[in-house]
Amino acid sequence: MSQDWHTFFEKQKKPSNYETSIQQVEDFIKAHINEKIALISSGGTTVPLEHNTVRFVDNFSAGTRGSASTENFLDNGYCVIFLYRLKSLEPFSRHFTGTQILNSLEIADNDTITVKRDFSKQLVSVLRKYKSSVDKNSLLCIPFTTLSDYLWLLKGICEKLTVLETRSLLYLAAAVSDFYIPTDEMTEHKIQSGDGPLSISLQLVPKMLQPLTSSWVPKAFIVSFKLETDDSLLIRKARYALDKYNHHLVIGNMLQTRKYEVTIVTKDDQKQIKITQDQIDNGIEIEEFIIEEVSKRHDAFIRNHH
Amino acid sequence: MSQDWHTFFEKQKKPSNYETSIQQVEDFIKAHINEKIALISSGGTTVPLEHNTVRFVDNFSAGTRGSASTENFLDNGYCVIFLYRLKSLEPFSRHFTGTQILNSLEIADNDTITVKRDFSKQLVSVLRKYKSSVDKNSLLCIPFTTLSDYLWLLKGICEKLTVLETRSLLYLAAAVSDFYIPTDEMTEHKIQSGDGPLSISLQLVPKMLQPLTSSWVPKAFIVSFKLETDDSLLIRKARYALDKYNHHLVIGNMLQTRKYEVTIVTKDDQKQIKITQDQIDNGIEIEEFIIEEVSKRHDAFIRNHH
Repeated sequence: MSQDWHTFFEKQKKPSNYETSIQQVEDFIKAHINEKIALISSGGTTVPLEHNTVRFVDNFSAGTRGSASTENFLDNGYCVIFLYRLKSLEPFSRHFTGTQILNSLEIADNDTITVKRDFSKQLVSVLRKYKSSVDKNSLLCIPFTTLSDYLWLLKGICEKLTVLETRSLLYLAAAVSDFYIPTDEMTEHKIQSGDGPLSISLQLVPKMLQPLTSSWVPKAFIVSFKLETDDSLLIRKARYALDKYNHHLVIGNMLQTRKYEVTIVTKDDQKQIKITQDQIDNGIEIEEFIIEEVSKRHDAFIRNHH
Repeated sequence: MSQDWHTFFEKQKKPSNYETSIQQVEDFIKAHINEKIALISSGGTTVPLEHNTVRFVDNFSAGTRGSASTENFLDNGYCVIFLYRLKSLEPFSRHFTGTQILNSLEIADNDTITVKRDFSKQLVSVLRKYKSSVDKNSLLCIPFTTLSDYLWLLKGICEKLTVLETRSLLYLAAAVSDFYIPTDEMTEHKIQSGDGPLSISLQLVPKMLQPLTSSWVPKAFIVSFKLETDDSLLIRKARYALDKYNHHLVIGNMLQTRKYEVTIVTKDDQKQIKITQDQIDNGIEIEEFIIEEVSKRHDAFIRNHH
C-alpha cells in the first residue's frame, strides 16, 4: 500500500535550498502577477542508497523535453519557473556544448578570444532570446537533485502559484521515481562490497498528482507525462491517470520515439503530434508544436473559467 | 561468491562503439609509440535495471578528478586516453559551463557574437592548451555509459597498451559499481509501480584489478582509487588492495574532503597531499600536485625496469 503524502513530508527533510528558493519564487510571482506562469519540471530524480551518498538510483532523463519546452513557453509569452535536476540540460545553454564551444572559439593575436563566424550565425538568435529572458526577468531556474528535494520544492512552488488561479500552468516533464528509500531506512556509510551481493528494498512514493490537483494548486491547468517502453500500455495508462487525478492533459510518449512523436490525451480527445526526419535534420524540435497546442488549450481553459 | 571475470565477459554484450573505439586506440598508440601514454578512467558507471532502460543505479561522480587530472598529465608530457562517462566533465570544456558561457557572450551590431574581455583573460590559457592537444593529437576521448560498456572498453584498451610496456600508466579514477544485474536477469520493460514496492537484487562484479595487473597489461604502472565515507577504513583498504592485486599505487580519498586532501599509498610508504583554502580560492586544483607526484613515481618505475 502506498504511503500517505502527509507522512512522506513528515519524514523526509526539506532540501537546504528550500527557503531561499521559495522566496525567489514568491518574488518572481509578485513581479508577474498579471501574466501567465508555467512551472516546468525537468530531468530525473535521484534516490540515494546511503546518507553519505556514493550510490543512487536514477531515472533516465537528459532534460531535453523540459529545457526545449521552456524556450517555447517563453516564445509563447509565458514566464517560466524551471525546476530542474542539477547538471541536466538548461534552456538556452543546452545549445552551447563543451567541445563544440571549444572548437568555435579562436585566439586572436592580442590574446583575446573570438567566436568563429559560422557559430555566430547559428547561435545568435538563441543568445538574443536568452538575453531577452534576462532583461525581462521571465525565467527563474530552481535546481534539485533527489526525489525528496524535488517533491518538497514542487509542493512549495505550487502553493505560491495558487494566487494566479487559472493563469498558472504545470508542465510536469521531470522523470520522477515511483520508488524511494525512506530516510530512516537508509544506511549511514558507503555500502561495502565485501558484504556480498546487494539487495535493495524500495517503497512506493505516494502519487503526488492527487494532492497537487485537489489541494496544492487546484485551479491551475495541469499537464502530466507518461513515458512507457511498451506501446500497448501508453494510452490506457494516460486515460486512467486523467480519470483518477482529474487534471487536464497527459502527454504520452514512448522511450524509443519521444523526440519525434507524442500523443496529447485529454478526457475528450486524443491528438498525435509528429515531426518528420526532414524537420529534425533542419533543427526543428517537436516541443515547438507541443507547446503551441498546450498553450492554445490553456487559453481556452482560462476563457472557460471566466 | 563473486563471479569469475571470464564469465562476466561471456555473458555481457560488447558496447556498440567497441570496434571503432578500439581502432581509434590502436591508431593513437601507433602515433605515440615512443611516448608515455596514460589511460584515465573518469565518471560513474550505470547499472541498468531494465533492458529498455528508464531506471538505473549510478555511482556519484561528476568527473572532476579524471578531467582535471587529464589536463595535468598532458602538461607533464603524457599522451592521454580519456575513458569517460558520457555527459560527465571533460578536460578543457569543463571550464566552459552553460550559463557562464551565455553571460560571457555579447551580440555586436553586425549580429556577430563576441566574447567579453574578462572571460577572455580568464580562459585564454585553457583554450590554448586545448588547441595544442588537438594540434599534437595528444588526447583521445572514448565515452561509456554502463558498467558493462566500461569494463569491455577498459579491457580492450589495456590489451592494446601492452606494447608500450612500462611507459603505459593506468589512472583508474572512474567510480565503478561493485554490483550489477546480469543481462539475463533484467526485465525487458519499464518496471510498473502498480506492482507494489520494489526489490532489486544485485550481483557482485568480479574484481577486475586482478586480471588487469596479471594479464591485460602486466607491465604498466597502475594507479587505483579508494573512495570512502568512513575515515577509519580508508588506509587499511588501500593497503589491502595493494597486497592483493600487486599494483603500484592507491590514491585514497574521503567523499567529504576529496577536493583538497588525498593520501598516496604504496607498499613502502604513504604521503598526504593537501591544498589550502587560499589555494582553492585562487583556482589551484589538487590534481596538479597529485599528477606531479604520480608522474615522478612513474618515471622512477620506468628507470628501475631498464
